[in-house]
Amino acid sequence: MLCLISLGLSDEKDISLKGLEVAKSCDFLFAEFYTTKLLTNKERLEKLVGKEIKILSRKYLEENFQEILDLAKNKKVGLLVGGDALIATTHSALIIEARKQGIETEIIHNASIISAVGETGLHIYKFGPCLTIPFPEKTKGKLPESVYEILKENKKRGLHTLCLLDVEEERIMKVNEALEILLKIEEEKKEGVISLKDEIIVFAKVGSKKPLIAYGRMEEIIKRNFEETPATIIFPGKLHFTEKEFLEFFRIEKT
Amino acid sequence: MLCLISLGLSDEKDISLKGLEVAKSCDFLFAEFYTTKLLTNKERLEKLVGKEIKILSRKYLEENFQEILDLAKNKKVGLLVGGDALIATTHSALIIEARKQGIETEIIHNASIISAVGETGLHIYKFGPCLTIPFPEKTKGKLPESVYEILKENKKRGLHTLCLLDVEEERIMKVNEALEILLKIEEEKKEGVISLKDEIIVFAKVGSKKPLIAYGRMEEIIKRNFEETPATIIFPGKLHFTEKEFLEFFRIEKT
Repeated sequence: MLCLISLGLSDEKDISLKGLEVAKSCDFLFAEFYTTKLLTNKERLEKLVGKEIKILSRKYLEENFQEILDLAKNKKVGLLVGGDALIATTHSALIIEARKQGIETEIIHNASIISAVGETGLHIYKFGPCLTIPFPEKTKGKLPESVYEILKENKKRGLHTLCLLDVEEERIMKVNEALEILLKIEEEKKEGVISLKDEIIVFAKVGSKKPLIAYGRMEEIIKRNFEETPATIIFPGKLHFTEKEFLEFFRIEKT
Repeated sequence: MLCLISLGLSDEKDISLKGLEVAKSCDFLFAEFYTTKLLTNKERLEKLVGKEIKILSRKYLEENFQEILDLAKNKKVGLLVGGDALIATTHSALIIEARKQGIETEIIHNASIISAVGETGLHIYKFGPCLTIPFPEKTKGKLPESVYEILKENKKRGLHTLCLLDVEEERIMKVNEALEILLKIEEEKKEGVISLKDEIIVFAKVGSKKPLIAYGRMEEIIKRNFEETPATIIFPGKLHFTEKEFLEFFRIEKT
């Protein structure tokens, strides 16, 4: 049996009672931290679960995919993942393959940035598709034009856009890095989708004791140079007055 | 202090360790089950937390809003809510008002259908805005045309649409009830957005031991008359081949 056990947004205490129970019942426990970064580590998770946990790198998981599935044929295997399982397509690939091979699967859900973004006061049913801003080397120096297209379409419909920032093993994209990429695309496309005058939201360290929500013009956000990670950037669409009222609590120009 | 403590998707064991810790530390505990239905109850939650919990009806919460805020001025007040807090606009309203009155707030996130829908194999970044199909009496017999517009726009962009089904105190909408409403709007609008030949997904009892995922033509889904609740209906947009492959595991026409 293969269990995907979601860890939620911040530290080891975000695991659910159910998730912890399933983790304790597994014969083998793995974790991957390359699709999401958490404010916890192997040692703290091991202490909580009372079991050894093997951390899988992207490379290891890709190359040893079948090894893990083989193990799950006769044993209960758990994979701990940040956020909510199956948001990353890596997890879907693992689950499809398990099902093809007749291996039973179980999914334990947990909090994800996709819904936690409600904490900014924006209405969840007004979000268009979300996007990820990739590290430039992943797109071979080419600017990620699809990101621009999604932003443009969402804006046209008055919808909010949640931008996730890329994560790689030990690296995590910062707010200003992401904004620089977006401004470069605008410079090239010149369709007026992204502007320094846009009012945007930075939502970082979600689920921690001190989440950061900052609202203000992009030029102001850049000046503040927020270093907090993991971070997301939200481009609001047409705002309802209750959304506006909520966001004003986080306006940086006042502070 | 006012703490919104999210309970996740299914039963009391979906609470996080952090959520349970915060709940135990509250002086007063309330819960509302009218925005989301869970497979648990007051007694099981009280046993888990070791504290008395007062269940608030919509009417009570609306009429005694200020009473709860007044309590939170000097005491630690927790409100247990299904799914992830702040998805329901009721919660945002409470939080805005608390902040206006200088009351400290804390949000404990948890799993939500908004991200759990990844369990169907559909890619999360291909979802357009979600919608709720309201009980007919809420729209005074008028068909909810905005629902139709959202579906139409999402379809045009090739995006998936997650349809939540309405919940009212003791009542929860069933799949066939929702589909009947949608087909009635199509009958009136005649724009070919909704058809009995559409392949759709029913995703119900999410987070329970036995979640239901059923994929097939709407006419087939209607014939099966799924009674499982809480349920959602998903209209897939343009499918990636990995999404197709995943969904085929749930095709009802084969079974």
